[in-house]
Amino acid sequence: MKGLYIGRFQPFHLGHLEAVKWILERVDEVIIGIGSSQYSHSLKNPFTAGERITMIINALEWVGIERRRFLTLPIPDIHTHSLWVEHVISLTPSFQIVFTNEPLTKRLFEEDGRFKLSSIPFFKRELYSATEIRRRMVSGDSWEELVPKPVAEYIREIRGVDRIRTLASTDKIKNNCTILNAFL
Amino acid sequence: MKGLYIGRFQPFHLGHLEAVKWILERVDEVIIGIGSSQYSHSLKNPFTAGERITMIINALEWVGIERRRFLTLPIPDIHTHSLWVEHVISLTPSFQIVFTNEPLTKRLFEEDGRFKLSSIPFFKRELYSATEIRRRMVSGDSWEELVPKPVAEYIREIRGVDRIRTLASTDKIKNNCTILNAFL
Amino acid sequence: MKGLYIGRFQPFHLGHLEAVKWILERVDEVIIGIGSSQYSHSLKNPFTAGERITMIINALEWVGIERRRFLTLPIPDIHTHSLWVEHVISLTPSFQIVFTNEPLTKRLFEEDGRFKLSSIPFFKRELYSATEIRRRMVSGDSWEELVPKPVAEYIREIRGVDRIRTLASTDKIKNNCTILNAFL
Amino acid sequence: MKGLYIGRFQPFHLGHLEAVKWILERVDEVIIGIGSSQYSHSLKNPFTAGERITMIINALEWVGIERRRFLTLPIPDIHTHSLWVEHVISLTPSFQIVFTNEPLTKRLFEEDGRFKLSSIPFFKRELYSATEIRRRMVSGDSWEELVPKPVAEYIREIRGVDRIRTLASTDKIKNNCTILNAFL
Amino acid sequence: MKGLYIGRFQPFHLGHLEAVKWILERVDEVIIGIGSSQYSHSLKNPFTAGERITMIINALEWVGIERRRFLTLPIPDIHTHSLWVEHVISLTPSFQIVFTNEPLTKRLFEEDGRFKLSSIPFFKRELYSATEIRRRMVSGDSWEELVPKPVAEYIREIRGVDRIRTLASTDKIKNNCTILNAFL
Amino acid sequence: MKGLYIGRFQPFHLGHLEAVKWILERVDEVIIGIGSSQYSHSLKNPFTAGERITMIINALEWVGIERRRFLTLPIPDIHTHSLWVEHVISLTPSFQIVFTNEPLTKRLFEEDGRFKLSSIPFFKRELYSATEIRRRMVSGDSWEELVPKPVAEYIREIRGVDRIRTLASTDKIKNNCTILNAFL
Repeated sequence: MKGLYIGRFQPFHLGHLEAVKWILERVDEVIIGIGSSQYSHSLKNPFTAGERITMIINALEWVGIERRRFLTLPIPDIHTHSLWVEHVISLTPSFQIVFTNEPLTKRLFEEDGRFKLSSIPFFKRELYSATEIRRRMVSGDSWEELVPKPVAEYIREIRGVDRIRTLASTDKIKNNCTILNAFL
Repeated sequence: MKGLYIGRFQPFHLGHLEAVKWILERVDEVIIGIGSSQYSHSLKNPFTAGERITMIINALEWVGIERRRFLTLPIPDIHTHSLWVEHVISLTPSFQIVFTNEPLTKRLFEEDGRFKLSSIPFFKRELYSATEIRRRMVSGDSWEELVPKPVAEYIREIRGVDRIRTLASTDKIKNNCTILNAFL
Repeated sequence: MKGLYIGRFQPFHLGHLEAVKWILERVDEVIIGIGSSQYSHSLKNPFTAGERITMIINALEWVGIERRRFLTLPIPDIHTHSLWVEHVISLTPSFQIVFTNEPLTKRLFEEDGRFKLSSIPFFKRELYSATEIRRRMVSGDSWEELVPKPVAEYIREIRGVDRIRTLASTDKIKNNCTILNAFL
Repeated sequence: MKGLYIGRFQPFHLGHLEAVKWILERVDEVIIGIGSSQYSHSLKNPFTAGERITMIINALEWVGIERRRFLTLPIPDIHTHSLWVEHVISLTPSFQIVFTNEPLTKRLFEEDGRFKLSSIPFFKRELYSATEIRRRMVSGDSWEELVPKPVAEYIREIRGVDRIRTLASTDKIKNNCTILNAFL
Repeated sequence: MKGLYIGRFQPFHLGHLEAVKWILERVDEVIIGIGSSQYSHSLKNPFTAGERITMIINALEWVGIERRRFLTLPIPDIHTHSLWVEHVISLTPSFQIVFTNEPLTKRLFEEDGRFKLSSIPFFKRELYSATEIRRRMVSGDSWEELVPKPVAEYIREIRGVDRIRTLASTDKIKNNCTILNAFL
Repeated sequence: MKGLYIGRFQPFHLGHLEAVKWILERVDEVIIGIGSSQYSHSLKNPFTAGERITMIINALEWVGIERRRFLTLPIPDIHTHSLWVEHVISLTPSFQIVFTNEPLTKRLFEEDGRFKLSSIPFFKRELYSATEIRRRMVSGDSWEELVPKPVAEYIREIRGVDRIRTLASTDKIKNNCTILNAFL
């Protein structure tokens, strides 16, 4: 059986890693869909799809997950939700079960009706959160312990914290919705 | 004389119904443009264009408005406002007067200059409000008395309240702009 | 039972009219989807969606088809075919059967699997052809007998033949693919 | 040497004018890119690209800057940031240095690495601010002294304050994110 | 009075230059719209908008046309023709007359009805033709005498002939519609 | 060293397979970019990106290529060629060399200048050609010997030949450019 697991992975953290391991105890192979793949260089989506794929592959190889057990695929956002399930299907090899905690993803696949759905247990959710990690990157707090080691190294290599801080370094958007939205 | 009446109708409620009746006392035929037609499955736009057209047709037949007196047409959002009036014109049979209380719609047709413009009296506005109805659906309050009976039935049939609640059921977006925006 | 009938209707001719009548002997109501609705002012798609809707309504009223038996809806082309069926569904009230002779439409609905499919008998196909009618409009041959009377009148009213001739009046594109494509 | 200076210029004010003068002390010619060029008729982007180009040309001629020293070019937003630098390059004659205080613009050109980058000194920033000017237009405060004289005249001529006030004249969006966002 | 002159200018040749001179005998200022501005690196559209703007500015300065008498502006294609006139208007300062020999441009402005229209005399049309020039570039024939001297120099500088030949150097598309279309 | 190899793979045939093997003698890992990934269900692009990824993975596993040596990624077409290289970069992990025989791909990467470029030897080109294979599928000739065995099986499983024949089964487009274009 093949599963689908979709996230934005901005960045890929230890909670995501635990989720992948948990999923691979239940299916033979997981398709990891990198959502909002066309976006990057914003507070909410700092990394490109290519960068996120690199993070995921490095992290999964680091814990010894075999390459034949996962597939990483960029899934660009289309803003017409009613077409989204077909859009995902057209970009992926066939799968039978969707793993998600995200309400919109869950609802769209439920209404479609062709796939099984499963929640994923959260792993120290308040800590292993991409929002929290981006917040720490901006404010200069420690974040490296929240992501797999090769992800931390890769973000250093591409100077990712610099990027997110430059993006946040405007005095115009203090204490407002843009900032709020970036941390959702 | 033919009139144009554009709304998002998320959902079509008794205030909209009163507006259509009021318009049909002034023109022979009304083109009902379903705005933001490509969007659905969000807190702000839960229903598809097809679902909204079904609501409107069922509601107008319920009060005995003849089918030859109205036309329902989806109008997808284009985000380039300067092209919007031409966009509407290209999708609709000819009309002479635009009925609207929406400032952007009003302004764009005013600057175009080719059409008459009319406001519409509000009917118990604080009550007959799509925002209020969606808020009630999410919070479990009663909403059915605010929409025409066949609209309530249709929303039950497609399990629309379930949909909007699933979309709202995320602990990530409590008390924030996304929620605020959804209720505008 | 409700049926779906999709065409470009450039313009709506007597063959289309016969098809609608034939369909209405089989279903209670037909949704007439105006395909490629965003295109106009080209040799292949001279008329806007609004103009085509006007033609269809005038023609069907002319033969006495009741308004409650048909619904005209613009369907913009999306060029990602794998999403097209969902796109149509999201824009239309529910239907159970699709009437089409167009291979792509047929195939996409077949692969989807949720709808019945039916061919439509052709009515003097070599004559009642939108391509042939546009060719006659360009070359100055008679074409009015190939469309319902109110359609001929409406095209005269909007000076449609003038439009198509202006579009064809370039000496640059003689005897070439653009012209060929326009007459497919 | 040629420079690039990108802004939204909603509207072009005295701070922008000082910036152009400061830039022209450093380069022979400046390409003025009108960002978000496809947007208009919103609280955040009230004016069309054509209107903004008119403002800029009138203002620069007013202070005697020769026409051969600047070039105005619309730059539509593409929302895929990773493509934005190439997008700008494809639309402009060649340049060697980018003048900007905007963090995203700065970061994207930095990562690209092919151009010099320079900040621009702010000129009475809290006053000469497009956000402040739009806020004053909405609330009826005086704003004309903050823009070059020909810009004030042109905005009067096209009834720009009327436009922005109509856009703001909705009781639905009081005290919320839409308004907040409009003034960023 | 201001005029609008729209072309693709792939490349800008002596016929275009004569047209601009002819137009400037009739109006004070001409807005030169660079059509299909988003396209480049194809047989039909080899040059970017930025490259075409450079050609035009260099050519007009070469014949001594003052900079204040012309404005170059990229006009991206939108494929919905019914919106095209508004699209042009939104991107340009105001103008009163449109100079064009192109049937679609002519027809769209005619139907709009707000502008004067004028044809432009052809200048050795079979020779001064962008199609003919691109054909010569591909086949290695001499073409430099058909464009203003600074345009020939600029195309050499950016190795433009190399580009067009690489694009044509595929054995797959011999003698077919793609090639035919490229030379329209 | 990592290489990039982009194709449409409609379908993935023995020539593609030989190319991948040849590339893997020269680099450690190859990123296989599935071009025109959003298109499917046409004569030129019959298969979805997901179907093409399935073909490639099955074929490479069949010849024993280890999963860690290749990565399959969908690359949607953007029609603005000047942005295409950045678009590819944003979607892929880093690579150093591009393998291609396609003139446009070659030219765009050449002008970019950041990557090495290499041609690929053709393997019985007139035979191992996706165009030839699609032609045979339409006309009922044998084609299975031209693709890797698991690709033939997969195409049978998804009834791919049926799909391509249905798409071709229109009497309207005999002997014309659409057909010609489909076989380029």
